[in-house]
Amino acid sequence: MSKEYDLVILGGGTAGYVSAIRASQLGKKVAIVEKYKLGGTCLHKGCIPTKSYLKTAEIMRYINHASDYGIKTATADFDMKDIVDKKNNTVSTMYGGVQSLMKKYKIDIFEGNGRILGPSLFSPQAGTVSVEFDNGESELLVNQHVLIATGSSPIELPFLKFNQQTVISSDDMMTLNTLPDNMLIIGGGVIGLEFASLLNDLGVEVTVVEAGTSIIPNEQQEISKLIKKEFEQNGIKIYEGLPLSEELVSIHEDSVEVKINDTTTQFDKVLVAVGRKPNTVDIGLQNTKIKSDDKGYILTNDVYQTDDKHIYAVGDVIGNYQLAHVATKEGTIAIEHMFDEKPILLDYLTVPRCIYTNPEVASIGMTEQDAKNKNLNFKKYKVPFKAIGKSVIENNGIGECILIKDIENDKVLGIHMVGAKVTELINEAALFTFMNGSTEELATTIHAHPSIGEVLMELGLKSENRAIHV
Amino acid sequence: MSKEYDLVILGGGTAGYVSAIRASQLGKKVAIVEKYKLGGTCLHKGCIPTKSYLKTAEIMRYINHASDYGIKTATADFDMKDIVDKKNNTVSTMYGGVQSLMKKYKIDIFEGNGRILGPSLFSPQAGTVSVEFDNGESELLVNQHVLIATGSSPIELPFLKFNQQTVISSDDMMTLNTLPDNMLIIGGGVIGLEFASLLNDLGVEVTVVEAGTSIIPNEQQEISKLIKKEFEQNGIKIYEGLPLSEELVSIHEDSVEVKINDTTTQFDKVLVAVGRKPNTVDIGLQNTKIKSDDKGYILTNDVYQTDDKHIYAVGDVIGNYQLAHVATKEGTIAIEHMFDEKPILLDYLTVPRCIYTNPEVASIGMTEQDAKNKNLNFKKYKVPFKAIGKSVIENNGIGECILIKDIENDKVLGIHMVGAKVTELINEAALFTFMNGSTEELATTIHAHPSIGEVLMELGLKSENRAIHV
Repeated sequence: MSKEYDLVILGGGTAGYVSAIRASQLGKKVAIVEKYKLGGTCLHKGCIPTKSYLKTAEIMRYINHASDYGIKTATADFDMKDIVDKKNNTVSTMYGGVQSLMKKYKIDIFEGNGRILGPSLFSPQAGTVSVEFDNGESELLVNQHVLIATGSSPIELPFLKFNQQTVISSDDMMTLNTLPDNMLIIGGGVIGLEFASLLNDLGVEVTVVEAGTSIIPNEQQEISKLIKKEFEQNGIKIYEGLPLSEELVSIHEDSVEVKINDTTTQFDKVLVAVGRKPNTVDIGLQNTKIKSDDKGYILTNDVYQTDDKHIYAVGDVIGNYQLAHVATKEGTIAIEHMFDEKPILLDYLTVPRCIYTNPEVASIGMTEQDAKNKNLNFKKYKVPFKAIGKSVIENNGIGECILIKDIENDKVLGIHMVGAKVTELINEAALFTFMNGSTEELATTIHAHPSIGEVLMELGLKSENRAIHV
Repeated sequence: MSKEYDLVILGGGTAGYVSAIRASQLGKKVAIVEKYKLGGTCLHKGCIPTKSYLKTAEIMRYINHASDYGIKTATADFDMKDIVDKKNNTVSTMYGGVQSLMKKYKIDIFEGNGRILGPSLFSPQAGTVSVEFDNGESELLVNQHVLIATGSSPIELPFLKFNQQTVISSDDMMTLNTLPDNMLIIGGGVIGLEFASLLNDLGVEVTVVEAGTSIIPNEQQEISKLIKKEFEQNGIKIYEGLPLSEELVSIHEDSVEVKINDTTTQFDKVLVAVGRKPNTVDIGLQNTKIKSDDKGYILTNDVYQTDDKHIYAVGDVIGNYQLAHVATKEGTIAIEHMFDEKPILLDYLTVPRCIYTNPEVASIGMTEQDAKNKNLNFKKYKVPFKAIGKSVIENNGIGECILIKDIENDKVLGIHMVGAKVTELINEAALFTFMNGSTEELATTIHAHPSIGEVLMELGLKSENRAIHV
């Protein structure tokens, strides 16, 4: 059997379903092929479920530190299973929402494995998608365009292969119904640190090992240092510049022994969070002209066309920032280009980056190091959160906010924040960056008092030499 | 004795001390006369201490509703005294900060009663300030300019005069070391509702009586209704359109009886929060040409000059929005005008307004009713927070966000929000409004996922007819 579509999307994750909606809004007939569940990693294994865990962890932290807020005593009991249930409820609510959207926009969903076929009877060019269902049946989706949005998966270490018991991935964390007493997290990037933060709040003894010279090495240095300091004060052990190798590790039935700086420690579980790899296996790339880089990421131009011009690719599978909001933006641009709208290209320097740890991290644009690498003539301005009343109330003023400005042309190159609620504050910085605002405008905008966001106004004032509170 | 200054500021509240810093930055010699404490109402009795209380109340709410977040059981014990102590610590930290700023900027502080004198030997024009100290001594501060920033105080009801025991003001709430079992709050404005919210979270049985037709009548109607619904679901009783009068009230030694809709209820305490009045008593206005309106608010032009052109007035005492961030902005503009900088005038439509209740309220610009009153041709767009993942995680998606757009010229007239963390989100709306952004720009700006702030992007998309999640 075969069906015809204007567009077939491989992958119903965030990039996939948002792109489908956009194409439907443009009057196109769209199908999505998804082998797991609409919503993909973001909804089922990433952004949303981890934030649900982190919210519970935040409340446990408040309970454990209630006296800091004038509460004499507070105690709580929890089962990880309930926290997983709560997370599943949230995910399920939102999954229902996505399914409704698909109905509303009349988007056909094929739950199976999609593979791009080469030129055939049905089409002189590669692109027809064959869907194989679990029951062995299959269907051909003939189309004008294909969008590859198959996402990414956790990378294994060769000497620590995922076994779902003692060596686990972030995916496995989604179904972990009991917490271990202690856990080793390999990888001090965004995913590793978010789990470190939440497991610490939930009472697990956490050790983080990072092979590179510092945790979150691509963020502004002060932020990496402050997170390390805060984590350590909260009892998380952090080792930087410590690559693990086979001879340092031995996997047992219910534990993993790891030698760290000459001391061997037994961990109940090891979470390997060393990065993600593109999902390109068995999707038929070999039947197309599509090229990939040496890590397997699909190569595209700046409107996300592959070398087969009618086939586009977006999101984690092309390996730019692996962030849901980047994937949806890339998808929208791809769709608008595909169907002759005129999209505004994505400037990756306008993309906010968030880490939902305690304290939170959020940034946009260039770090100081990025600016140095580009030989820019810049100046750095800092405002500590101690100067911001609402921040003092929120978390005793932990954190700071840094602005990097090109002093040749006064352009703001980057804004970097660590502190309470900065993953919300970053959206103002995103609008500011996108609208190419000046620090004069940031300084002159009336910010609500008291709000943590006043920090951006103070930064603006500071870089205009008229700071009030610092 | 007399001293000479470029500027003498009456009142060391937020408007006063920020104005002093700005003048000092411009190289001026400045004195502040303050009879209570630097920082004024905002720091000692308003914005900051209430937010400290509200933070503790938020944590108590989490504890009382822990099961909503997957926590099996949670309990807590508190003494109001500790919560007051915690608040005092926060205030004291920030008070120390303000005192350091005064030293840094070499601003002289006179702790006494300041009064403006008429023309005299020292000055051909009114304006010399006489300071009377508690010890009976006094000092004359000769100056070029005076800035009146004396603020405001809670209004009493003639039949419910403050007695600091059963009939109290928001000021008295700052030292309330034990909580009553039940409390009547008269006034459903910002102050009344914030106390209603926090007292409810702390276990007090709260009744709110509002004389006008609805609580927070100047905000977008849907928001007023949603707050009423949420408050009632949380157990707060709300009566609207119910003016109280002498015959409905009888004050006893340890309670107040109030007749509400034919039922007489005994309240342990009554908090009267029916508004604030300007502090203009005994500051020497009669010695000047300064004019006031019928409520006593000092009249100024749009750079805050009074009819005595060298005397300026800003903040609560001039009775525009009585908000700290308005007062500081007015003060900065006054100073810059006074000393021949060229300030950008304040457009009150760019001022964010916040209510720190549960859920929070934040808005900017015109409500639908304001737009109707001006006969504008507008359209209203709504996004429910149920559509925003982070909001579902945060508070089960309670709330909504409304945008009012002039359809003649596509200008955004107002943005109105009720939900979790909207008092932070409003700063993006403030920047957007100040920079005169278009909904196209709001829609195209990449917002972090997941964040509650995505709601503003969805609103932008919706008003461009390309919403994704609604």
